[in-house]
This record gives sequence, structure tokens and C-alpha cells, in this order.
Amino acid sequence: MTDAATLIRAKRDGDRLADDDIWWLFEAYASGEVTHEQMSALLMAIYFRGLDAGELRTWTAAMIASGGRLDLSAIGKPTVDKHSTGGVGDKVSLILAPLVASCGAAVPQLSGRGLGHTGGTLDKLESIPGFRTALTPAQTLEVLAETGCVICAAGSGLAPADRRLYALRDVTGTVESIPLIASSIMSKKIAEGTGALVLDVKVGTGAFMKRREAARELAETMVALGEEHQVRTRALLTRMDTPLGRAVGNAVEVEESVRALAGDGPPDLMEVTLALAEQMLVLAGLAADPAAAIADGRAHRTFRAMVRAQGGDPDAPLPQAAHAIRALPAPASGWLTRLDALAVGTAAWRLGAGRARKEDDVSATAGVICLAKPGDRVQAGQPLLELRADSEDRFGPALAALDGAAAISEQGPPRLPTPVIEQIG
Amino acid sequence: MTDAATLIRAKRDGDRLADDDIWWLFEAYASGEVTHEQMSALLMAIYFRGLDAGELRTWTAAMIASGGRLDLSAIGKPTVDKHSTGGVGDKVSLILAPLVASCGAAVPQLSGRGLGHTGGTLDKLESIPGFRTALTPAQTLEVLAETGCVICAAGSGLAPADRRLYALRDVTGTVESIPLIASSIMSKKIAEGTGALVLDVKVGTGAFMKRREAARELAETMVALGEEHQVRTRALLTRMDTPLGRAVGNAVEVEESVRALAGDGPPDLMEVTLALAEQMLVLAGLAADPAAAIADGRAHRTFRAMVRAQGGDPDAPLPQAAHAIRALPAPASGWLTRLDALAVGTAAWRLGAGRARKEDDVSATAGVICLAKPGDRVQAGQPLLELRADSEDRFGPALAALDGAAAISEQGPPRLPTPVIEQIG
Repeated sequence: MTDAATLIRAKRDGDRLADDDIWWLFEAYASGEVTHEQMSALLMAIYFRGLDAGELRTWTAAMIASGGRLDLSAIGKPTVDKHSTGGVGDKVSLILAPLVASCGAAVPQLSGRGLGHTGGTLDKLESIPGFRTALTPAQTLEVLAETGCVICAAGSGLAPADRRLYALRDVTGTVESIPLIASSIMSKKIAEGTGALVLDVKVGTGAFMKRREAARELAETMVALGEEHQVRTRALLTRMDTPLGRAVGNAVEVEESVRALAGDGPPDLMEVTLALAEQMLVLAGLAADPAAAIADGRAHRTFRAMVRAQGGDPDAPLPQAAHAIRALPAPASGWLTRLDALAVGTAAWRLGAGRARKEDDVSATAGVICLAKPGDRVQAGQPLLELRADSEDRFGPALAALDGAAAISEQGPPRLPTPVIEQIG
Repeated sequence: MTDAATLIRAKRDGDRLADDDIWWLFEAYASGEVTHEQMSALLMAIYFRGLDAGELRTWTAAMIASGGRLDLSAIGKPTVDKHSTGGVGDKVSLILAPLVASCGAAVPQLSGRGLGHTGGTLDKLESIPGFRTALTPAQTLEVLAETGCVICAAGSGLAPADRRLYALRDVTGTVESIPLIASSIMSKKIAEGTGALVLDVKVGTGAFMKRREAARELAETMVALGEEHQVRTRALLTRMDTPLGRAVGNAVEVEESVRALAGDGPPDLMEVTLALAEQMLVLAGLAADPAAAIADGRAHRTFRAMVRAQGGDPDAPLPQAAHAIRALPAPASGWLTRLDALAVGTAAWRLGAGRARKEDDVSATAGVICLAKPGDRVQAGQPLLELRADSEDRFGPALAALDGAAAISEQGPPRLPTPVIEQIG
């Protein structure tokens, strides 16, 4: 037997938490014996001291055991999901789920909402008239069985301990901890019942992980957790120094995703999407060519079927912003070498596309369109962005975020790094 | 303007908290805008990152400003108090307050209760039949004016923020932080209104600070805080490797204190007491000889007057324990070189003299009498301690704490270190 203060002091002083202590902790936290203030002190101690592989395995297992686990065996297909740590213009899930489904896998994509400067997949899809992201477990399975994919909110029954811990971490400055991030992501994905998982761990100015070493450590930690729980797991580190594609927002990203499914996607977006699709298909044991599934229209048809199955109308026009301006004039003539992801993401957020707090609403139509991307030749004074918003008073704060967001080189054209950096697992 | 999560992350990442942020924090914590879980995460971040001198000054000022401050100017005498960081057998306050008062100062000793293996001054005094430690501010001033000293509980109006923070630190593993300890002690002492303060910072196995460097850092931190708030402050580092005097408990320590006031105190106890008394008198600007005040009976008479003024009967017999056993046989013949303070303190605590939780009661009679002290010549098998308790089932757990508590040397007599190590300030 232990008590919370003893356990907190042990972690604070750099000792390991025993498996029994971790199981006790989660039970006692659920029952209220361990208080929120004790848990938040422990989370801060974990921020400083970390969790070793054994502690993290047990911590994650206890989070999974706090709720139910979906049983996808009735689907009769290999199941494979993808998770992204979040980026600017990261609409990959919208394309990837129907794409991989159209190649024969079942993709149960249980997602979260956006917070801060990175958008959320559910927020994007909800800009489609009628689209519902709140499904019961039975509805989730039904859509998955019918169309091969589903993108909906993770229900409250999956890893509820993560929901409570995340809410606490959000207000107590303990989000930025690799073991806590890894256990949060993986507990939900493992509870969702997928057989395989590909992780898109983003690195760069617009990503949660600014440094490659930290991103690699997070990726390795998550891959190990997946494998320990019999989920075949791999990760790709991908670059997030500039927005992915050209659209950043909600409806604007759906629009770009539909064009990508129709074969007209921007090269950086397609490279990341196809690389992730290939990994998912390998893990699912399917020998299919995802590029062909786009070329022959299968992926696009699957997307339309999923939208319909979730109550949306794939033919309805997407909402349009009331106001638009052109912004960020090129500071010189030459080649655009930098268009900062964090600055653009923050601008889109301030335009209304993202939320500052969980309870905020987002605008379906607000966002940013990149009129030029790194590698493009530009003329001095040419606007590099278009900003869209529901009200004009949004433009001022958004413009303030864009100061110094672009860099031009007279030497060119610049050699751009490939979006996919490396594979882990 | 700031918010709690931003402030927590700043401290977590090693940044300074601005003065405005600290003032905001305490106001927002009092109003409930900053939650307990946010404060506990911040306290853990402070445990790891510390507070620099400027942050600590503001932090302490905000704690003082959370409540009222006693005005002792009507007393018409120099006021001087003492605080000990806590030790085993540390009954110094019981002797010191009347001793210094009998030399012409006013000693407003607002004290706390014991927790863990170190006893509390209030718990000791409450073993005197009728003695009351809960006084109103008016009663406190009345006793102080009448007898020159008062030893009572710090009322809820003084530094209430410290009360809330301490309760939080106690359950969240954030007690052991030098800036948090220093601000907790000094905010109460400064709010109490004393003009001068002598700190007894104990070092050793039975002390809160095991290492001299940490004790010195704590002492220097507190001396600086006192001086910044116009309280003349000094500290003595004193040894706490073995119990001070021979009695450890409540009534047994009162008994030993009364003997000491009557001129029959053990040498180590008297050396510490007189050293602290001299410092207090210097800070109070009084040229008096505390040893003479004991020799001529003034100090003892002042103690009896204080006991009567606080409702106690100085002539009533002290309560006696129902059960006593002799314990800890000397492992060999020779000179006793070590009688471990932590072991003896823990034994006394388990016998009932101390409390594990704030809400526990303590036994007035339970405790330990040291039948031998380091430096004494002992025979193999001779019991070194007498244990006293209200029920016999207390003896087993107490004996378990004493394993290996004594060491004997055949070389002797050993040279014992002096109890007073050094002066700070």
C-alpha cells in the first residue's frame, strides 16, 4: 500500500514508480482518493523526471483499462489507423482514410479537435453541411463496415482517464512531456481497437515538436507502446516548417482535400499522404498502389460514401467567408525560401479557424490560402497569402502574427528538403 | 495580464516570475480563479526551479499581505521572537521565551503544531493541565503585556495564504523546497509583528535539513527575507544528530524544561538555549545575562506567570504514562558515540507523542527518556532508553524504529562536537 504524497515524492526524487503503485494511482484517482491537485503535482514531477519504458507501459495500460476497447473483429478486414501530432494545413487524414479504405483496409479514425494553432480533423469535416462527428460505437462500426472508413470523435468510453488527465495537463502546464504525450495518444488509439497504426510525427516551427531529436524520441516511444499492446506500429517523421498544401482552415482544407482525391493535390501534401498510405497498407498486409486508387477515382468515391454515411452532403457547396484580403507582400523579388508554419497557423487561428479554449467554437470558413509556397519565384510586393474571415475585425490580429513570416533569396531556385524525413519502426 | 497556465510554464521552463505575476497569482488563488491543481503544479515547478531572491521577496510579501499584521507597539518593550526548524527533544522555546522575557524583552511566540517525528511547542505546553494555546489577538497582547511572553497558536488572520499553501504542499510532495520553507516561516513571523527574530536552523539526522550546506542556504534565505521586511534577523545552525536534552515527548519535555528553568538543565540543551537567548537579547538591544536570569529564579517565575496567564496551573502534577519499558540495550561496553535523533524521534512519534496527519491527536504522556547520551560510558546490555506510552501495543512499532540507533566505541571518551555550529547574519 502506498499513498499519493509518498508516490509523488518518489517520482519527484527520481525513483521509479512500481507497477502496483501506478495501478493503484489510476484507481484512486478515479475514485477521488487521489485528488486533482495531487495528480497535477505528480504530472509536473513526471514532466521533470520522465517515465522509463516499464513505467510508461504500465501507465498506458492503466489508461486503456480505465474504459472499454472497441472490438473491430466483425469488420472482416485488416484494420489500420493513422495519427498525426498536428500541423498547419495538415488535412492528410481527410484524404488518407478513404484512400487506404479504397485499397481494401478498414480505417477507424477516431479523432480529436484542434487546440491552438494546429487544426483538428473533426473541425474540418464539420464544415461539410450535415456531417456528423458524434457517433455511437454502433454507428461507428456501421459506417466503417459500409464504407471502409469512418472519421468521428473518440467516444467518452475510450480511455476516459486520458480525458481527465488531458484536461488537467492543459491548465497546469504539463502538456509538453514525451511520456505523457505518448501515453495519451497511444491509450486512445489502442482502445479504439485498430490492428495497426501509422504515426505522422511532425517536426518544425509549426509542429508540437520543434526539434528532430525530441520528435524521434516521441516516435520511438509510441512505436514501442503500440508493439507492446499488439498494435503493429510505425512512425514517419515529416517536416512542418511551412503549411502542408496551400489551404489552412476548415472548409478551405476540405476543398483542397477533395481536389487532392480527384488527382489535383499539391506535391508536398501528396508526398506525405502517399508515404503514410504505403506504410498503412504494408502494416495491413495489403499489396495495393495508393496512387492508382487516386488515379482511378476509387479513393474519391470512398470519401463521398463516408461523407454520406456520416450525414453529410458531398455535393453541397462549402460555406464561404464573408471577407477576404490579400496579405504578406513579398519583401523582395526572388525565390520564396521560407513561409513560416507557426505564423500562418497562428494567423488562421486568429482569423477564427482554431480555438484558444476547448469550449470555443470555430469558424467553418475562416482561414489562410498560401498564394505562393517555398520554392516559388515571387516579385517584390506580391501578396503571398489570402486571409479569410467572417468579420473584418479578425484581420488586424491575424496580420500581426505574420510579421517576418516570409524570407526571399536572390539565389535560386532553392533546393527544398523532402517532406518525409525518416521512418521509425 | 497573464494566466495561470502561462505562469506555470514559465517557471517550469526556468524563467523568472515578474512581481506583477506573483501579486496576481496570490489574488487569483484567493479568489479561486487560480485553482488548487494549478497552484500545486506551480509549487512542484518551484521545487525543481527554485525562486530567486527577487521572486522570493515578492512571494513572501504577497503571503504577508494575504492577512493582517499584529501591532505590538503598545507593548512598550523591544520585541524579539525565535523560530526553530524542528528537532527531536527540542523544548528550547519553552525555556527561551520566559528567559528572554525575564531579561526585559517581549517575546511573542506564535507557534505551530508538530508533524512527523519532530514535536510541536503547542503540543508540549498543552500537556500542562488547563493551558490554552488558542488565544484571540487581544488575549495574545494581554498575556504578552502582563508576563513579557506568550506562546500560542498563530491565529487564522496571519498569512492565511501560507495556511492554504502549506496544506497543499503537505499532500502534494512539495514541502521540501528551500524558498517555499523560507517564505512559509518568515511570512508568519513577519506578520506576527516582532521587531527581531532569531532562527534556530537544525542540521543532522533528526532535522529537516540533513546537510549543513542546505541548512546554511535556508538560514541565509530567511535572514535576508527578515531584513528586507525590517525584522532584524539572525540564525544559528545547531546540531540535531542526537536528541536535545534527555526527554522526547510532551509532558516529559515540559518537566525537563521546568528543571532547566530551575537551574538543572542538561548541558547540550542549556548551551543551545543560552546561545539563542544571547542573540535575542543583542537584537533586542538589551544588555542582560540570561544565565543570571536562570540562576536567580526570574526566568522560572516568568514561565509560571505565563502558564497561569494562559489558563494553566503550574503546580498541577503533569500526566503520567500508563506503561513504561526499558529498551535499546547497549550493544557493547564502552563510550556511547551515537544515539540517533531520527530513530528516537520516530520511536516517540510511534509511541503517540507525535502525529502522522494534521487532524490526529497526540498523547500528552507518551515519549522517550534517554538514559544515556553520547559521551556517556555504558555497559553492554544496559538499556539506553525508557519508552512510555498510554497502551502497550505502541511499544512494538516504536522498538522497530530503534534498530541500530546506538553506536559504542571502545576508544574514549569521545570528543563531542559543540551543539552550536555557526551564526548566520
